[in-house]
Amino acid sequence: MNNELHAVARFLRERDCFEILTHAYPDGDTLGSGFALCMALQQLGKQARVITTGVPKDFTFLQKGIVPQKFTAQTVVSVDVADVKLLGDNRAQYEGRIDLCIDHHLTNRVDAPLKYVDGSAAANCEILFKLFLLMGVKLDRGIANCLYTGVSTDTGCFRYTNTTSETLRIAADIIDLGCDTAYINKVMFETKTRKKLALEREIYDTMEFCCRERCAIISVTLDICQRVGVSDGELEGLASIPRRIEGVLIGITLREKAKDDFKISVRSDESVNAAAFCARFGGGGHAAAAGCSIKGSLEEVKAKLKAAVEEIL
Amino acid sequence: MNNELHAVARFLRERDCFEILTHAYPDGDTLGSGFALCMALQQLGKQARVITTGVPKDFTFLQKGIVPQKFTAQTVVSVDVADVKLLGDNRAQYEGRIDLCIDHHLTNRVDAPLKYVDGSAAANCEILFKLFLLMGVKLDRGIANCLYTGVSTDTGCFRYTNTTSETLRIAADIIDLGCDTAYINKVMFETKTRKKLALEREIYDTMEFCCRERCAIISVTLDICQRVGVSDGELEGLASIPRRIEGVLIGITLREKAKDDFKISVRSDESVNAAAFCARFGGGGHAAAAGCSIKGSLEEVKAKLKAAVEEIL
Repeated sequence: MNNELHAVARFLRERDCFEILTHAYPDGDTLGSGFALCMALQQLGKQARVITTGVPKDFTFLQKGIVPQKFTAQTVVSVDVADVKLLGDNRAQYEGRIDLCIDHHLTNRVDAPLKYVDGSAAANCEILFKLFLLMGVKLDRGIANCLYTGVSTDTGCFRYTNTTSETLRIAADIIDLGCDTAYINKVMFETKTRKKLALEREIYDTMEFCCRERCAIISVTLDICQRVGVSDGELEGLASIPRRIEGVLIGITLREKAKDDFKISVRSDESVNAAAFCARFGGGGHAAAAGCSIKGSLEEVKAKLKAAVEEIL
Repeated sequence: MNNELHAVARFLRERDCFEILTHAYPDGDTLGSGFALCMALQQLGKQARVITTGVPKDFTFLQKGIVPQKFTAQTVVSVDVADVKLLGDNRAQYEGRIDLCIDHHLTNRVDAPLKYVDGSAAANCEILFKLFLLMGVKLDRGIANCLYTGVSTDTGCFRYTNTTSETLRIAADIIDLGCDTAYINKVMFETKTRKKLALEREIYDTMEFCCRERCAIISVTLDICQRVGVSDGELEGLASIPRRIEGVLIGITLREKAKDDFKISVRSDESVNAAAFCARFGGGGHAAAAGCSIKGSLEEVKAKLKAAVEEIL
């Protein structure tokens, strides 16, 4: 694997005029990876820019060290992109043109002549940290901030089970480079928007339990979204709410996409297979996190789900 | 500092029949420290037991490796106890009898012939980790679980500003010893009790903003506690709620201790000195976290606080 990373380092040293692709609905790891790589390449005297579908407000500080450059692109690199589908609006322009793919999703399906995929890395930024050391990149504060943001957000600030001892050692090295963990942790993990607060308040009121309290269900209706003033993109993270309640083995979140059309997210304990549960409704996913779609009124959809839960618990 | 830690190691090796004191309203760090030290001493062939004011349900797993032993105590060690006042019901029995005090609070006021206080340690368990290495203690899974619980809970799972690169490296070493981070993180950071959920729901309804939304106030009345069925000991962690809202510089939590008698907790941004704010009402604390008591009806107390906020913001 080290050899392969050497090949990536060699490739980057040999090429110039980089466009770095990040995935749509961008998170801290894809943006941290993209901006860190862009800064590293510019530091090495190369031309580079990051291609995004837009940078959410909380992540704009990551771009600070980047110099806008005008050039004709010669090399396309994707970071933290598991599939070209995830390029969103940039897919049409870049599909089939990716020269190098760096990712940490074992399920990566990007078609590129040079690929480096390390599924043991909790965050793509872990891979970039090692790559930069190989390449002799000077890890300044701007790069350190990008890498810390990627590593911390993809691990829920080191709380998720993907966190390894290596993750923590890399984060320790990044902290020693002088990154601003106080600011980053505050923005990423400590701050709640007024809208999010209002949304949680509404959602708590929809919570129902069944199967001797081992199943919890929350419902995010169009009505609630309108009342609170949130759009679909602002509903991230809700699906973990019901599963987190003490004693709950299966947590179900209903999101009304259109009238009588619900997107279902299921999160489960190790004793319940969420993917198998969702397969009953034509969906799928992982053992602990899966999804499906069900049509019907809110009450009908809930009744179907409860009946299915009764059967498996 | 290393010399001093050597002195602690020597003291523990020379003595026997240990009673290890933890602080009242115990948290993961005092219990993790206490049980880890007890296991380490028993492993070295000594007699030892931990003295608590009761072990909350979530922490009972920490005791697993401990063998109950009958002996007459000869040596008293306190861990993570900043002041004898914090021994709670055990104060009368142990005040003036502490032989060794190991702590990470710079404000430590325990009177003991041998003291080791390291204010740079994010958790007391960091100190114990280094101590055990010095003493040649075999760090088995039980000890590792105790140390990880202490380090992770005292840093909000590595999110608080007390987290250093050394904290992360110690945590990495502990993970490599085989501790059960998945279970510990789930219990400590992912699980919410039904009561806590019901309490948050009620509290969200009490939230008020003032000073152009830069101040948020929540109120926990006796009425709410009774309705939800929670006691004072179950109200931990609430004080951080108002401060976490986007744009809020000062977050205030009112807890009704008795009719017309409120305990006030203040959490603030770096731009506001919480201790100075609380000093106006005869209280005190740290720059970012302080407290005071105010008597009066809920509306009177809120009006006093709002007037004071208007003056400083």
